[in-house]
Amino acid sequence: MKPCNHFDQERAEFVLEDMYPTRPWLNYLWNDEVVASADQFGNGFAWTQSGTKRRDLESGTRNVYVFDADSKELYSATRNHGDLPFDSFQATIGLGYHRIISSYKGLEIAFTILVPTSGKRILYRIEARNVSKKRKDVTLFFVNEPRPALSWHDAYGEAHPNGKSIVYSHVGFRVSSDLGYLALSSSDIPSGFETSYNRLFGVYGSPESPRGGLGKGVLSCQGDEFEGHYVGAFSFALSLAPGEKKDIRLGLAAAESEDDAIKASSSALSEEAFQKEWDAVTSKERSSHARYQVHSVDEVLNAQVNTWLKRQISLGKNWGRLYGKGFRDVLQDITSFASLDPETAKKQLTHALAYQYEDGNPIRMFEPNFHYPYQDGASWIPMAVLSVVSETGDASFLEEEIPYLKGVSKDSYSLVDAYAEEPYESRVSGTVLDHVLRGMEYLTTSLGEHGLVLWGGGDWNDSINAAGLEGKGESVWLSLATLKALKETITLLGIAHDEENAARMQEKAKTLEGNILHHGLVDGHFIYGINDEGTVLGGLERIFLNPQSFAVLSGIGDQETRERAMDEIEERCSCAYGYMQCAPSMEQGDPHIGRASYFQKGLVENGSVYLHGVAFKMVADALLKRPEALYADYRKIRFDNPANPQNGMEPYAFSNMMMGPESKYRKGEAPMSWITGTAGWVYRALTEYLLGVRPTFEGLRVDPCLPKDFGRASVTRLFRGRTYAIAYIPSKEKEGTYVNEKRVDVLPLGKKGDRIEVTVYYPCV
Amino acid sequence: MKPCNHFDQERAEFVLEDMYPTRPWLNYLWNDEVVASADQFGNGFAWTQSGTKRRDLESGTRNVYVFDADSKELYSATRNHGDLPFDSFQATIGLGYHRIISSYKGLEIAFTILVPTSGKRILYRIEARNVSKKRKDVTLFFVNEPRPALSWHDAYGEAHPNGKSIVYSHVGFRVSSDLGYLALSSSDIPSGFETSYNRLFGVYGSPESPRGGLGKGVLSCQGDEFEGHYVGAFSFALSLAPGEKKDIRLGLAAAESEDDAIKASSSALSEEAFQKEWDAVTSKERSSHARYQVHSVDEVLNAQVNTWLKRQISLGKNWGRLYGKGFRDVLQDITSFASLDPETAKKQLTHALAYQYEDGNPIRMFEPNFHYPYQDGASWIPMAVLSVVSETGDASFLEEEIPYLKGVSKDSYSLVDAYAEEPYESRVSGTVLDHVLRGMEYLTTSLGEHGLVLWGGGDWNDSINAAGLEGKGESVWLSLATLKALKETITLLGIAHDEENAARMQEKAKTLEGNILHHGLVDGHFIYGINDEGTVLGGLERIFLNPQSFAVLSGIGDQETRERAMDEIEERCSCAYGYMQCAPSMEQGDPHIGRASYFQKGLVENGSVYLHGVAFKMVADALLKRPEALYADYRKIRFDNPANPQNGMEPYAFSNMMMGPESKYRKGEAPMSWITGTAGWVYRALTEYLLGVRPTFEGLRVDPCLPKDFGRASVTRLFRGRTYAIAYIPSKEKEGTYVNEKRVDVLPLGKKGDRIEVTVYYPCV
Repeated sequence: MKPCNHFDQERAEFVLEDMYPTRPWLNYLWNDEVVASADQFGNGFAWTQSGTKRRDLESGTRNVYVFDADSKELYSATRNHGDLPFDSFQATIGLGYHRIISSYKGLEIAFTILVPTSGKRILYRIEARNVSKKRKDVTLFFVNEPRPALSWHDAYGEAHPNGKSIVYSHVGFRVSSDLGYLALSSSDIPSGFETSYNRLFGVYGSPESPRGGLGKGVLSCQGDEFEGHYVGAFSFALSLAPGEKKDIRLGLAAAESEDDAIKASSSALSEEAFQKEWDAVTSKERSSHARYQVHSVDEVLNAQVNTWLKRQISLGKNWGRLYGKGFRDVLQDITSFASLDPETAKKQLTHALAYQYEDGNPIRMFEPNFHYPYQDGASWIPMAVLSVVSETGDASFLEEEIPYLKGVSKDSYSLVDAYAEEPYESRVSGTVLDHVLRGMEYLTTSLGEHGLVLWGGGDWNDSINAAGLEGKGESVWLSLATLKALKETITLLGIAHDEENAARMQEKAKTLEGNILHHGLVDGHFIYGINDEGTVLGGLERIFLNPQSFAVLSGIGDQETRERAMDEIEERCSCAYGYMQCAPSMEQGDPHIGRASYFQKGLVENGSVYLHGVAFKMVADALLKRPEALYADYRKIRFDNPANPQNGMEPYAFSNMMMGPESKYRKGEAPMSWITGTAGWVYRALTEYLLGVRPTFEGLRVDPCLPKDFGRASVTRLFRGRTYAIAYIPSKEKEGTYVNEKRVDVLPLGKKGDRIEVTVYYPCV
Repeated sequence: MKPCNHFDQERAEFVLEDMYPTRPWLNYLWNDEVVASADQFGNGFAWTQSGTKRRDLESGTRNVYVFDADSKELYSATRNHGDLPFDSFQATIGLGYHRIISSYKGLEIAFTILVPTSGKRILYRIEARNVSKKRKDVTLFFVNEPRPALSWHDAYGEAHPNGKSIVYSHVGFRVSSDLGYLALSSSDIPSGFETSYNRLFGVYGSPESPRGGLGKGVLSCQGDEFEGHYVGAFSFALSLAPGEKKDIRLGLAAAESEDDAIKASSSALSEEAFQKEWDAVTSKERSSHARYQVHSVDEVLNAQVNTWLKRQISLGKNWGRLYGKGFRDVLQDITSFASLDPETAKKQLTHALAYQYEDGNPIRMFEPNFHYPYQDGASWIPMAVLSVVSETGDASFLEEEIPYLKGVSKDSYSLVDAYAEEPYESRVSGTVLDHVLRGMEYLTTSLGEHGLVLWGGGDWNDSINAAGLEGKGESVWLSLATLKALKETITLLGIAHDEENAARMQEKAKTLEGNILHHGLVDGHFIYGINDEGTVLGGLERIFLNPQSFAVLSGIGDQETRERAMDEIEERCSCAYGYMQCAPSMEQGDPHIGRASYFQKGLVENGSVYLHGVAFKMVADALLKRPEALYADYRKIRFDNPANPQNGMEPYAFSNMMMGPESKYRKGEAPMSWITGTAGWVYRALTEYLLGVRPTFEGLRVDPCLPKDFGRASVTRLFRGRTYAIAYIPSKEKEGTYVNEKRVDVLPLGKKGDRIEVTVYYPCV
């Protein structure tokens, strides 16, 4: 039977039966303190982080080798180097865990990696089962690659007297972490251990062709020092009767002392304790997932909405983009997970707004913050605040006091730790609404000679990073984003009953809209902007995707203007797997545009199908009531688009981009998986626009934008303590949202705990 | 026959027949613009550098694969993954080249890597010879790993229309190098090429187990982009009659344009041009090597002195310690190669002294210079100046004007590019002698309360980097080094007939000597110093090696004091493979000592056999007329010390250290090869002290310190245009140096071009 990868919706897992996808497929496992990656074979990195300080835990192979005493064969049960004829071999991508199961010559091995819900810890479990008819005598080897060194050649790896642990210690001069100790511990007394990569695999060997101790099947049981490359390896001698199973559990942890590291790594090694951690991980994820469940004929959409987009958003929620947390990324993430976890959204928003300067402009990044004059930060604030208020219905949040960063945002441009900028206490503060307003004030007073918002060092498109450095260039996209933000601000001011400011913002919006329509439209579409030199980016020669989608998102001009802009996109940016970020790609590096123009054609911001941009367009299509286009957008950027079979993307996580049709050598490939704002916007496009279940301050609205042939579907949405059960019925006659057979605009709130049945009819002709 | 590694003195090569030493053995190849490393299989890195800017050329595997059309076998002729039964397999470590020769199933492959004498280029040659009795049809694959990217995903690798080249281009935004283009070119039209690592070896393959195109024996002939990992791979289809040979040449080069890169990489691909480069490389090295040739019964000593120590010194001369050039390292290197290449020594010294501040203290490092208050820089200046003047006999060098760095050395402590510090023109300047004197002034006025030289951020022992940061700690070692430098300065002042300054320096020396003897001696040996806290480092509890050797080198006190200090070393620091840098090792990190105390016991400055320190001791032993000790020191730290069989060191290059006897797990191992000041000092200890051929301003002196059983030996020394042929004869009666049967003190100068026969009798009882 051909291997068949599939979503297991019941268990919220993705099962990989083809272990050799075009490129390695990643799983991420994390809690607040640890993040780990695992490719399908379990290889990957792990680190802990506090503030800007990162402490590596492991990186490289995680492997279970088997030495069969009868056949004298040594093989990897989890990597299967050399393609041995395994009877079965598969990986399970789980939420917070990763498992590889293989079966070879009568021995089944299941290897599980689990990041528990808390602690600087990673857990592993090896389950070995004799599925043959005779006794099997084997040695199991667990191998990973802890990274104890915090500075140059200062680490030890050595056995702990408990007989079940290896301790890696690092006590260096002026090292940058307090977590000087790692420990790797086992539930069972191992028959041997190894700390040195070279001794384990051999100086001239490798994980693929082990020489050294592993190659001979015997570990040295020695510590090591001055080692660039440590391993954590244990051997276990097993003798299994037919049908017998052996279960070994291990833990890796970082701590400030040897004792604490031993304790943390050993804390969940009993069967019961491990099971408890397991249950905690699986139940934790699922509680937020229950807040929105869809069932439709599109099984991939069901799996992505119900499980995987949430999971990807959740990685952003905890770990940003891994290399750091951009202000704009955090704000967009908050917007998208406000419906899943409103309390955390509120907390993170409160935290983020404290990194807005008194002039209204926020920092660029938290970890690290580099002082480069990006300009778009404030434009994302109203949307995030509105999301939180809409989900909770709690207007008092607008009155919460949050401090500002002292000074103005343009003081200095350098790489700094934002957390260290200013003692929290000494800051001036303002309400959440004041933060929103100061943001708008900043944007609407940072205007150039055409009355458009200054480009500065860049906006969402942070690769157009040299178009406005001289303080003259103006961004039409940012002006549109500001217009959108002003309208969201007006909505917030309505909730707050602040008519005076609302009128003021209306005025600002009107002026800005006029300026954009006057200077930003060329040949029926919106340009990206006018740089310091006065050169127009966009126009006859080139069209950019995002200004058109944001024209719609901001509701600028009349319907015809917006329709026309989007039609231009369909005509000029479309390809078989989405829409190019700009078309055609730029041919030549331009120091007055910046990095984007130096990228190769079809790559990243220079003409790739940048998925974040396509997700913006999905919402724009919905606002224009173009359901076929919206759904087609989604199908085009999906892993299973038959027109782009070589995309290589994980079915359970969107990538940052697909290389564009003008890419010279790698059209359609989708590198850079998981860490992208795409997930949040696709999630909102599907849940709030395609299926149309949109939270507002007044309550939940349902305004779907479903293609005619989408068929029946249902959504269960938890909202302010109520459960809404929404049935979608395609209809040739009826349209609209009904509760108890009464057409409604906003769904009735009822009482806490109520289950409210909703029927939505949508046109199928 | 057992594989037998050996020096080939005739060809100035080291031949490795055992291809699997304890750890990989490195060769370095370089010119002024390029440096490359190669392990025995040819794998390694290469880069070009100008100022602090580095531009990678390649890193990773260099490999020749063979696909045999008959047997369908693919194998690596240069790496032999999987240990195939090769008929022969050996590597040749040459001066400026590296060669691997193998023979398998009737095909002999010789693969040569050559760094030509100039240019940002590396050359390769593959010689394939059918040594079987029948025709052989094979495909050869050349593979290396060029590193074109200068910033994130901005490189292309693609075929050039000439059909024989791959061009890697990088044109990025604000990238840090002008060398945007690499080209790999071949002498022959290849049958195929590849640019992508993943396509060549397969996403799930490796150089060891190629899948992908190489695994199938067919290359894709495609360019690539957005690739973290490029390769340069060509295939060549050969059909060789019995005895037939095919010779293919390749070149890799970096340049500012595609055309220039193609030109540079193709510049030496004809047989004649390649041969010319070859001849230039081999003859260039040998000319400086001829300046000192020894023949003795110790063949290893002969090889090391005649060829390999010079080669190692030469790496330092061009490339410092690779990661950067320390001021003290450069000055010591100059001292050691002044006798080999006085013109370059003079040039480098002139250059280095321009990085001395007006207060007399020089920078810490050139590339990069980090402003950390190291104090010992000036103490190495007189020795280097004296070396140049003694070699050339040209006192006018002392009067050359050299600028100073503006300001004082303690202005700021940060990482900077010294070259950018100050425009050359605006500096004040002084004569070479003035530079020497200002250095002495700096040291002898930077005194603490005991009248010893302030420790600051460290001295030679740059890991004791926190003992004097508060400006109180005093270093006895640095005081001794200063005393030594003062005496060398007095010699220089004698040459310059500057009696006034000489008297002043005499006075300073006398005072300093008194202070050292008064405060620096504890229990018969010299302490390392007294830190900011007033704590003595060294003393009853611990002895440091270098203060004792420098007591002798500085000639402090009476003979008995110096003998006693050295006896303490013999008693307390000695081990089977040398002398510990301190004994016992420090047990506990101390923030008032610094990094050294945080190193694990037996490692680096904390109790390793730091070979640079042993080399100092070799000279001290000579000065105490302890020939047996001197020669034993050398034999102990040599690769072939039978008491330390696991040292793993290259026979042709000294390592930085051997892990000390208190190392917990790796006693005796010698990591960090090549880049150490050890080479220069061992070279001088052997040539100027053991064999005693010492240049002075007055002329060459011969004052050997040979062990009784050293036997007959001879030295040929080129000096100021003369050739001295020195014969060493052990004698029970006669002692001293004879020319024309007349005992002499300084060898007669004769005329330019003269050959002067010298006979040296040394005691053999």
